[in-house]
Amino acid sequence: MTPLRIALYQGPGGVPSSTADALDALAGAARRAADAGARLLLTSELYLTGYALGPAVHDLAESADGPGARAVAEIAERHGLAIGYGYPERDGDAVFNSLQIIGPDGRSLANYRKTHLFGEYETSSFRPGTDPLVQADLDGLRLGLLICYDVEFPEAVRAHALAGTQLLLVPTALMRPYEIVPQTIVPARAWESQLYIAYANRCGPEGDFTFAGLSCLAAPDGTVRARAGSGEDLVVADVDPDLLAASRAENTYLSDRRPELYTSLL
Amino acid sequence: MTPLRIALYQGPGGVPSSTADALDALAGAARRAADAGARLLLTSELYLTGYALGPAVHDLAESADGPGARAVAEIAERHGLAIGYGYPERDGDAVFNSLQIIGPDGRSLANYRKTHLFGEYETSSFRPGTDPLVQADLDGLRLGLLICYDVEFPEAVRAHALAGTQLLLVPTALMRPYEIVPQTIVPARAWESQLYIAYANRCGPEGDFTFAGLSCLAAPDGTVRARAGSGEDLVVADVDPDLLAASRAENTYLSDRRPELYTSLL
Repeated sequence: MTPLRIALYQGPGGVPSSTADALDALAGAARRAADAGARLLLTSELYLTGYALGPAVHDLAESADGPGARAVAEIAERHGLAIGYGYPERDGDAVFNSLQIIGPDGRSLANYRKTHLFGEYETSSFRPGTDPLVQADLDGLRLGLLICYDVEFPEAVRAHALAGTQLLLVPTALMRPYEIVPQTIVPARAWESQLYIAYANRCGPEGDFTFAGLSCLAAPDGTVRARAGSGEDLVVADVDPDLLAASRAENTYLSDRRPELYTSLL
Repeated sequence: MTPLRIALYQGPGGVPSSTADALDALAGAARRAADAGARLLLTSELYLTGYALGPAVHDLAESADGPGARAVAEIAERHGLAIGYGYPERDGDAVFNSLQIIGPDGRSLANYRKTHLFGEYETSSFRPGTDPLVQADLDGLRLGLLICYDVEFPEAVRAHALAGTQLLLVPTALMRPYEIVPQTIVPARAWESQLYIAYANRCGPEGDFTFAGLSCLAAPDGTVRARAGSGEDLVVADVDPDLLAASRAENTYLSDRRPELYTSLL
């Protein structure tokens, strides 16, 4: 099966002065990604608005088919690739921290609401999602969706692997000094649950936070196929279903589990 | 609370020519560990007999209170420290891959039977254990017991953290080329489940295997407090309950879990 090429866009850095600015940067990244042969472009958590907004994040929230989604769909169609982007999602009175995947034809493939909220800002700003297993298909590959803190919980990743996810998409807003997450935890997740993980971070300072960059594509064989620096960056690498199948045949964690012994986890 | 000093003995390398030889090496390690102020000495998986024995492992298996246990107890008492050692355990017709902890007074504190057996040799030689949560107390610290492949399953470590384990003891027989386990997976487990992990490996060649060494004490703050080389080694480091408490207060993985979303893991 043909590998799927993915691009991770880490940027542009800081809170965008407007959603229009974020969309301009996204269009530039999509053009470069498409030029590099990518079929999928992943951006960071709360990409459209910025992360450190305080209560203003509620004013900027929009529905999953709102104007931001339509603008992203136009970029995806123009460049013929799928785009995953983080945004604050409004649904009635509730605001979620969400990730949407728009296909190369401009239609939504999936929308996920973050289930593990991090810290005071997030727990006071967002309602936690209730569906831990959101998936989509692209070019024959099964995608899974998580956001930032979710991936630090082995349970969340394991559930995806058991449900057939081959490539886990994880936009993030990972701040210093938590570099252990992209450096150690994300590669560990890819190895222990035998799947690819695309981890697309923010960079630069926002309010009290400085985001760590270091976006990566971690593979099931323990390698890191692409790694961004600490500033604005776009990195490209291949997700190879044949490598995944070979790695799963060799590293049999998923079949060697003993779920009857794990009852205390619930 | 006073830190507990632990020594990890990685050696002597190869299949011992007899259990008496293994006990001699253990006595030497216990003396050095006690001289360094250690209250606990951890050795490797199947320490008493060697790992790559084939069917002979059944002939060498003994009960948890057999002659090997009595000899280890004598060493523990003589040097005034607890000793954790791997051995093949006979119980009627069954043989288990086990870890026993003997206290400084020479009495058994706990005995654990490996629940996740690795590969053809182990699954054909041992019966898997059925109790995933074996613990013991030493100097006010709650110890947990796992063996080798067990620790590669986040479920097994998480269950210990939820049950109050502060220091997880993991004798291992980790072979090349799986250095990713001591280098990445073990530190990831300590961080994600917020506990200390002592990982004591074998070293050198045995039959078709070459063991990787790299024994370590991984801490909940993401640091590695001690790291052995690839050959015979004894390393010593402190397990600090105050550091653990501070790390758990800062990194709230255990309370931020959403177990109601993890039903697919069982």
